[in-house]
Amino acid sequence: MPISPKQRPAVDILATQLLEGRKDALAKAITMVESQLDSDKQLATHLFQLLAKEPPKHRSNRIGITGVPGVGKSTFIEAIGLALVETGDKVAVLSIDPSSAKTRGSLLGDKSRMDKLSREPLAFIRPSPTGGYLGGIARKTRECMALCEAAGFQWIIVETVGAGQNEFSVSLMVDLFVLLLLPAGGDELQGIKRGIMEMADAVLVNKADGDLKTKAQLTLKDYASALKLMPPPENGIPVYANVISAAYGSGLAEFTSWMRTTMQVLHQSGWVQQRRSQQDKEWFTEILKTTLFGKMLKINENKDSFNQLLAQISGQGLSAEAAAEQFFEKLKT
Amino acid sequence: MPISPKQRPAVDILATQLLEGRKDALAKAITMVESQLDSDKQLATHLFQLLAKEPPKHRSNRIGITGVPGVGKSTFIEAIGLALVETGDKVAVLSIDPSSAKTRGSLLGDKSRMDKLSREPLAFIRPSPTGGYLGGIARKTRECMALCEAAGFQWIIVETVGAGQNEFSVSLMVDLFVLLLLPAGGDELQGIKRGIMEMADAVLVNKADGDLKTKAQLTLKDYASALKLMPPPENGIPVYANVISAAYGSGLAEFTSWMRTTMQVLHQSGWVQQRRSQQDKEWFTEILKTTLFGKMLKINENKDSFNQLLAQISGQGLSAEAAAEQFFEKLKT
Repeated sequence: MPISPKQRPAVDILATQLLEGRKDALAKAITMVESQLDSDKQLATHLFQLLAKEPPKHRSNRIGITGVPGVGKSTFIEAIGLALVETGDKVAVLSIDPSSAKTRGSLLGDKSRMDKLSREPLAFIRPSPTGGYLGGIARKTRECMALCEAAGFQWIIVETVGAGQNEFSVSLMVDLFVLLLLPAGGDELQGIKRGIMEMADAVLVNKADGDLKTKAQLTLKDYASALKLMPPPENGIPVYANVISAAYGSGLAEFTSWMRTTMQVLHQSGWVQQRRSQQDKEWFTEILKTTLFGKMLKINENKDSFNQLLAQISGQGLSAEAAAEQFFEKLKT
Repeated sequence: MPISPKQRPAVDILATQLLEGRKDALAKAITMVESQLDSDKQLATHLFQLLAKEPPKHRSNRIGITGVPGVGKSTFIEAIGLALVETGDKVAVLSIDPSSAKTRGSLLGDKSRMDKLSREPLAFIRPSPTGGYLGGIARKTRECMALCEAAGFQWIIVETVGAGQNEFSVSLMVDLFVLLLLPAGGDELQGIKRGIMEMADAVLVNKADGDLKTKAQLTLKDYASALKLMPPPENGIPVYANVISAAYGSGLAEFTSWMRTTMQVLHQSGWVQQRRSQQDKEWFTEILKTTLFGKMLKINENKDSFNQLLAQISGQGLSAEAAAEQFFEKLKT
């Protein structure tokens, strides 16, 4: 369903403001994309149609940052973000925090967490609640990244806590994936989804300051040995491993420099373009599947039969295949 | 579309023979499930409907085994399989080998690879070509596992080479996932998909015999340290790490005993049932999505528009989201 002629000018203006790089327009556009309302979805569709005519001319760098709560992600991102804006780059930070969906209170929390960065004209910080999206947070995050790129942001930093089902999707939608660790053994990794460690392009042991400095260095040594036993990143760049102190600023210049150089190399070799194109193809198929599925479930009889079969899988050990057979026998189109 | 009344008796007989545990019937049923012909698919559907009325009464154990070519998977599986049939258990081995889809020649190769096991009355060995399935090998493998379970097999061993896109799906559809390694540094892991190492419930360094024994023990030591730095398995059982010699039989009794005990524990705690039920729910949704997508692509105009948009994503950098918008504007139903 197309949007009404009455709504069209507002979206046209939003698109223009977004392409001018206005942060208020970006915030508004993200709210539109995150909305569950059908009317907002139509507006968002129209917005993306307008933006498709003006593909971003600058190179964008998509960086994922993960680690358990308390590892110092915000302090780290703020420091990195400040270093990037200092050289005139525009930096967007998208935080995915499963807990914020419950409390709806992390927006203020996040802004105050990255107080200095949020006051920078070249920076944009946006926490996203993650609950209730059909198809997970991955799709919304991709759309928000696209909006940030349309608004001229060169650096898109996606922050996650490493625990969710969508963690793999995020690691696959960024160009570089950074894992922050505490100076400790492996206990802290209880909170990290299995398989995530191997996705990292950089492993940083934070809090390498004061009493913890030696422990951080020992932790790094252990991880550096472990990383040698893991399959290397597909981009051909060896995993960057180092100690840092986000709070005291040590090790950050080295990391930022590595990140800039690596992104330059990966852009120049065509790796970024090739990987994003591959991801776009996979996502295209995924969006079609999810959308068709969503349309089908809008028919109440289908929705009821779907839920009944889900209950039978749980309660009576019905297999997925048998449930699917039964579903299609009764499918209404 | 239902199958014709003429074909019904043949499938009825197949189901009866399968439930009696006849290996020839199992082989025939798997061929039916793997077939790309619509007529075979309908027969398979009818077969699964018949089998759904007779759920297996025995506990089944689904074991995934992965490792690079040359690590000794066949020798290992044959040894483990022989140990299991010796105690009266029925063992099915399903091999997923991406290369076999090209040559169509691995069936003979595999049978000769596991010569002794293939002559055991309680064992069933089946290599699967993997090319060309809509939705990947994962769905076919699940269906083949179900057929083996219907035929009374207690142990279903799924063998993969660790490199494919479907590797994660396989690691998620088995109860225990075993990684075989060579006595070496991390170089051999070039052939293993990133993230797979962390999925392992058991890591075995093979070829710990002759000149390689010391090297194997050192490799084990390195991996044992590395495993301590990784998130623990979600089933609560610590990763089993040991050296083995599949060729000379050392370390196999210990591993088999660990595998039996662990499966018993995981069955008794309800973990297996709970995990499979969760997987069935996810698969149910996945099958519905893939089937709806497949039906939609059967309309030629949709297929053409899908392929054109894929080409535009590759060639012109069209985004997944924009492609999806364009697709639905022209969708024929």
